[in-house]
Amino acid sequence: MSKPVARSVKAYSAASASAPLAAATIPRREPTSRDVEIDILYCGVCHSDLHFARNEWHFTQYPAVPGHEIIGRVTKVGADVTQFKPGDIAGVGCMVDADLSCPYCRKGLEQFSPSMVMTYGSQDKHLNLPTYGGYSATIVVDQHFVLRVPGNLDLAGVAPLLCAGITTFSPLRHWQVGPGKKVGIVGLGGLGHMGVKFARAFGAHVVVFTTSARKEADAIRLGAHEVVVSSEPDAMAKQAGTFDFILDCVSADHDINAYLALLAVDGNLTLVGAPGQPLPVAPMSLIFGRKSFSGSLIGGVAETQEMLDFCGRHGITADIEMIRMDQINAAYERMLKGDVKYRFVIDMASLA
Amino acid sequence: MSKPVARSVKAYSAASASAPLAAATIPRREPTSRDVEIDILYCGVCHSDLHFARNEWHFTQYPAVPGHEIIGRVTKVGADVTQFKPGDIAGVGCMVDADLSCPYCRKGLEQFSPSMVMTYGSQDKHLNLPTYGGYSATIVVDQHFVLRVPGNLDLAGVAPLLCAGITTFSPLRHWQVGPGKKVGIVGLGGLGHMGVKFARAFGAHVVVFTTSARKEADAIRLGAHEVVVSSEPDAMAKQAGTFDFILDCVSADHDINAYLALLAVDGNLTLVGAPGQPLPVAPMSLIFGRKSFSGSLIGGVAETQEMLDFCGRHGITADIEMIRMDQINAAYERMLKGDVKYRFVIDMASLA
Repeated sequence: MSKPVARSVKAYSAASASAPLAAATIPRREPTSRDVEIDILYCGVCHSDLHFARNEWHFTQYPAVPGHEIIGRVTKVGADVTQFKPGDIAGVGCMVDADLSCPYCRKGLEQFSPSMVMTYGSQDKHLNLPTYGGYSATIVVDQHFVLRVPGNLDLAGVAPLLCAGITTFSPLRHWQVGPGKKVGIVGLGGLGHMGVKFARAFGAHVVVFTTSARKEADAIRLGAHEVVVSSEPDAMAKQAGTFDFILDCVSADHDINAYLALLAVDGNLTLVGAPGQPLPVAPMSLIFGRKSFSGSLIGGVAETQEMLDFCGRHGITADIEMIRMDQINAAYERMLKGDVKYRFVIDMASLA
Repeated sequence: MSKPVARSVKAYSAASASAPLAAATIPRREPTSRDVEIDILYCGVCHSDLHFARNEWHFTQYPAVPGHEIIGRVTKVGADVTQFKPGDIAGVGCMVDADLSCPYCRKGLEQFSPSMVMTYGSQDKHLNLPTYGGYSATIVVDQHFVLRVPGNLDLAGVAPLLCAGITTFSPLRHWQVGPGKKVGIVGLGGLGHMGVKFARAFGAHVVVFTTSARKEADAIRLGAHEVVVSSEPDAMAKQAGTFDFILDCVSADHDINAYLALLAVDGNLTLVGAPGQPLPVAPMSLIFGRKSFSGSLIGGVAETQEMLDFCGRHGITADIEMIRMDQINAAYERMLKGDVKYRFVIDMASLA
């Protein structure tokens, strides 16, 4: 494979952990034989974008370009690309490359492959450069990591499915949520509101746990059968020991034992939010009831496609608020206050 | 059902949290129509006995009689008892009664039934008295909770199977440990040494984690393929990401994230020891690799019988040190120092 040539494209990047994001240019490789080049139409704003831009995970290289909820139009494909042609609408999520030969890749769990390249914050396998995310005009991605997008859905509302969607869909599927199961969704934000939609679409009885009583009507509108305000001890006590599965979408510190107490025997609580501090787990919270506390990370490529196809059949998209690219710094501040219903999506035409 | 009459039997009991155990008498009910009366031959000494005697779980009523690893000979059975007759050897574990009608009982998970009566520390359903454990001459137990004992096994070595045995057998079965699986056993004490024997008998590759390099030869003798001294960072790092299942048998505080790091994708760590303090779990320890952290509590009656039958077929018993009843207080002190290979068993003839 010949070394690909890089060209310059418009983007929004952070120059340091304390700098606001601002217009810049970044290099993108010319498509190799396996690559798909995409003009980005919409990019969702994930809480990870903010952690990354501000180096809160301590691995950011600058300039940093976040964005891994990408919807765009294919403009060019390499000679070996079979599934996409110019003009197609395509999606890209949190991953853009991997060697595809490891046992995890072969099982469709590319997210756990040692060779997996993240959409931002990894190293480009072709250029001697970091990978840059979707806050940019175009992106070039190995065909294996490009998703087909159902034609019937609003494209801006599809963008957040590439991270928030698959992050909630995958554990709900893995733990076999469906009819006859009682499911809790903890936290009604970008992740949680997708969790509610999927759990309801899978046929489960859905209970939303929120700290904000004012979110109750919205939780019901999104598909919840019940809403519990988690600061009310009596309301929590009534739910004790009754849940088959709880999807914990909270990124702030919280009392995990209070939710483990809500699980029935053999119940599972899966964490998809990522609080910064360790969560103290009382051994008896797990021992009495043979309960499990798990984590889950996005999903594999095939499962992400399955999720998008499911959304097409069921008319599911994220609830979004569209912003311009130059509103991103203000959007981060609002996101930190939980002031978004339920995902910001950048109209990338505004980058022009 | 007429109210059963109580009679007085010899026992060893604690009069308070700070008192040593001493000879006493306790009331036992005359067998009802469903009851089996057993002359106790051997009683294993579980760490729970010590916690209970000293009120470390804050629910002990005094006088307190511990002991839930009981082997004895049937002396009398009620009119409705079909599976036992006088002269049979029988076992009793941590449970002696339940209403058997709840969903958990019907699934063979009596240990999670709200009506379950523990061998000690619960309330007798027939007498208005606490239940008293196996540090006594006889016990009277509902037939459902009496186990058959394979005839080919050393009876003193069978006693610890009723708690330490089933506590390790059940999660190894539940998480499908067998050929082709790599299994870690953390801590080589009363629970851990049974975990090693079962995991090896199930056909897994067994790795023992211990803080004591001096336990290495013994771990190999018990069936381990490898031994890792957990205080050696290099030895731990070599095992990272390779385990399908880890059975954590440690009751002392320890770094659970260090063991979660050893799990492969979709791996499970199950806690059967019960450290007194909450264990801080780093969210990323679970999220990267879709790992699970679980607990397990003894096992149901049918599974306990399956375990005993398995032990009969494979010649498995606990490694024990026999003591007299009047050595129990010294044995507790030695147990606190980890000075036992691997379970004390009381020769109940010494109570006479």
